Amino acid sequence: MLTCEIIAIGTELLTPDKSDTNSLWLTEKLNEIGIEVKQKTIVGDDGARLEEAIADALKRSNLLITTGGLGPTEDDITRQISARAIKRKLVFDEDVAREIAAKFQKMNREMPEINKRQAFVIEGADVLPNPKGTAPGLMLDVNSSSDPIAVETTVIILPGPPRELKPMFENFVLPKLRLRAGEVFASRRILRVSGMGESAVDEKVAPIYTKFPGIETTILFNRSEVELHLTARSANVSENEKTLDKLSEQISEALGIALFSTDGARMEEVVGRILVVAKKTLAIAESCTGGLIAQRITEVSGSSGYFIEGAVTYSNEAKIRTLKVPSELIENHGAVSAEVAEAMAKGIRARAKTDYGISVTGIAGPTGGSESKPVGLVFVGYSDESQTKSFKIILPGDRNLIRWRASQAALDYLRRQLLKTN
Amino acid sequence: MLTCEIIAIGTELLTPDKSDTNSLWLTEKLNEIGIEVKQKTIVGDDGARLEEAIADALKRSNLLITTGGLGPTEDDITRQISARAIKRKLVFDEDVAREIAAKFQKMNREMPEINKRQAFVIEGADVLPNPKGTAPGLMLDVNSSSDPIAVETTVIILPGPPRELKPMFENFVLPKLRLRAGEVFASRRILRVSGMGESAVDEKVAPIYTKFPGIETTILFNRSEVELHLTARSANVSENEKTLDKLSEQISEALGIALFSTDGARMEEVVGRILVVAKKTLAIAESCTGGLIAQRITEVSGSSGYFIEGAVTYSNEAKIRTLKVPSELIENHGAVSAEVAEAMAKGIRARAKTDYGISVTGIAGPTGGSESKPVGLVFVGYSDESQTKSFKIILPGDRNLIRWRASQAALDYLRRQLLKTN
Repeated sequence: MLTCEIIAIGTELLTPDKSDTNSLWLTEKLNEIGIEVKQKTIVGDDGARLEEAIADALKRSNLLITTGGLGPTEDDITRQISARAIKRKLVFDEDVAREIAAKFQKMNREMPEINKRQAFVIEGADVLPNPKGTAPGLMLDVNSSSDPIAVETTVIILPGPPRELKPMFENFVLPKLRLRAGEVFASRRILRVSGMGESAVDEKVAPIYTKFPGIETTILFNRSEVELHLTARSANVSENEKTLDKLSEQISEALGIALFSTDGARMEEVVGRILVVAKKTLAIAESCTGGLIAQRITEVSGSSGYFIEGAVTYSNEAKIRTLKVPSELIENHGAVSAEVAEAMAKGIRARAKTDYGISVTGIAGPTGGSESKPVGLVFVGYSDESQTKSFKIILPGDRNLIRWRASQAALDYLRRQLLKTN
Repeated sequence: MLTCEIIAIGTELLTPDKSDTNSLWLTEKLNEIGIEVKQKTIVGDDGARLEEAIADALKRSNLLITTGGLGPTEDDITRQISARAIKRKLVFDEDVAREIAAKFQKMNREMPEINKRQAFVIEGADVLPNPKGTAPGLMLDVNSSSDPIAVETTVIILPGPPRELKPMFENFVLPKLRLRAGEVFASRRILRVSGMGESAVDEKVAPIYTKFPGIETTILFNRSEVELHLTARSANVSENEKTLDKLSEQISEALGIALFSTDGARMEEVVGRILVVAKKTLAIAESCTGGLIAQRITEVSGSSGYFIEGAVTYSNEAKIRTLKVPSELIENHGAVSAEVAEAMAKGIRARAKTDYGISVTGIAGPTGGSESKPVGLVFVGYSDESQTKSFKIILPGDRNLIRWRASQAALDYLRRQLLKTN
């Protein structure tokens, strides 16, 4: 199996605000053709460290991808330092220079002298075209013959901006790697589970996935849901898919309704799909989630087919005015109560004339909590043509997390009801 | 100046879904006391690679922090491999073992045999307590005497889970490093700019910040705003702050109203602060943003003081019913039009009886666009007691980005109006 290392280059990647996201995208693409990423290094615009990082990687990996540092300024040292680490010359490529000049001409600008630096290529390297920018990429095979145990390494030098890197990698690198990677293909599937903790899920599914030793299973907890990542690797893609089908099916049986997605779809997409098929409509009334549930529902393209209206009734007056929540209910039980949640769900459903209405009222914090109604207390309301009901939940986390988890709880409650009634 | 390297350990950090976020947090903390991170490495649960990464880091950095791999299972190799790389023994620490057992006892559980592995410490290391978990951290000074050019390196071994790592680092590591880092403190400030591109901002501010060579200035573009990160480093914190004040002031003058935040506050916080001071109230009517603006406004704790109501009027009926948009307007101009945006802003303001009403209607895509009304076309409406108006904008990006940028455009429009009228 080919093993890969990625070196991300740029001082900005060593600040608290920026992380190297190119390598995540590259890893996904590489995994698909059966290549595993074994190490990642992030270095600044620092010649000595970069040279050492490249030289070390050449000794241990078949494939080295560098990203960034191909710009036209003095800071951009990747061309020069990688040539030095590989022990090859940097040569001026007239064709590349002409192409860069042509790009500037197309924008009616003259090429700044400084951009000529981008026309230097490592001797013997293939030039990878960059339709989205001026810096070409480079690809070459290196055999560090000075070291007797050295492996032959394919070095791929890519620009840093994702909009330049992605098309370059997909169009000019991936086809070549696919040929070389040869016989192993990875197929991935993401299963999502709601309403169960990580260890409860593992307890139920471990007896199943351990019977599929060829499949790599990872369990992740992601804010409000558990994700199962299944990866099958073999020479035969349809064989992979068949095994994944079989495993998913058994997991699905074990988890029942808690498993809401077997193809990576998010909760709002799953809810949307059920509504589309059932030809039903939805309205949403929100207090502490402040529009988050409506926002999630409408993130899905096509949601205008089933989502009619949302009300963010943050104040009590808005609850009374727009949702017709009786003011006595608020006085007697408080705005955060089962009674008000139910009246909100019923009210928005009546107002919008939809098949379903859901609502959330709660205390997202950090202030506003009390002993009897602590921060994290949330009521989710549900209303359809035959019934209105609610449930209470106490959610851990900070304000944002409580809001997110409340939105997830409401959508999951809706999903479970939809599955019962449709 | 002390230089630092971070090694993040764990095979899950080499998948497409997980990135190493601990190092971002650590970098922020280290930068504050004047320590720069020079390199980051991510390796899997792979003994050979980890040993090499540690040994290499010892040769070139004063400070090495590892994160992860301290769990109780076979996969967790950090203790063993780092001891080997440092050439010290791993010894069983009775005190640590007792503490771990006590933690299990507190949860009324017996300590699994496997957790004894976590009681092994590197000979001579200080043990860092872990109030949030079972694995203690380790801290020790290493002088790789076998290598004549070796630097003395402080090695800090931390657990992977952020909720364990953060308090351990803040309570038991940072105070020691602060003493050692000595004389240099870094002060940071984030300025945010809306309604201008990255290069337009740079053109205006470069003549200013280049006159402050001691301050590191980074310009980032973040979805819909430009961020200026200013870092001052000196032995004197109040000196740093004074210089930052001076630079911020000059930048603020150059950018005028486009600069909306000089203390890192986000757009929704800035708008909220103005409303609080002016004692004014707000209501929001949204179509294509689907609740995103209300959600952003209510992300701010205390927003219930000024935000009264939001309407997500996704369907035309909802616009007519809830916002009293005349149906002829929709028929004659379409739901995505200046006329409808204005009627929505006016309608929500009247409904919620607020001082201000804002609205958004547009085409977020990917479908629904036409030649005359392309994907990305957005109208933002605004209404106060004396006027109602709107503006048109065509936004680039995918569905999510268009929605985000539309929400930002609406909030920024509101901000500019608030500054004029208050």
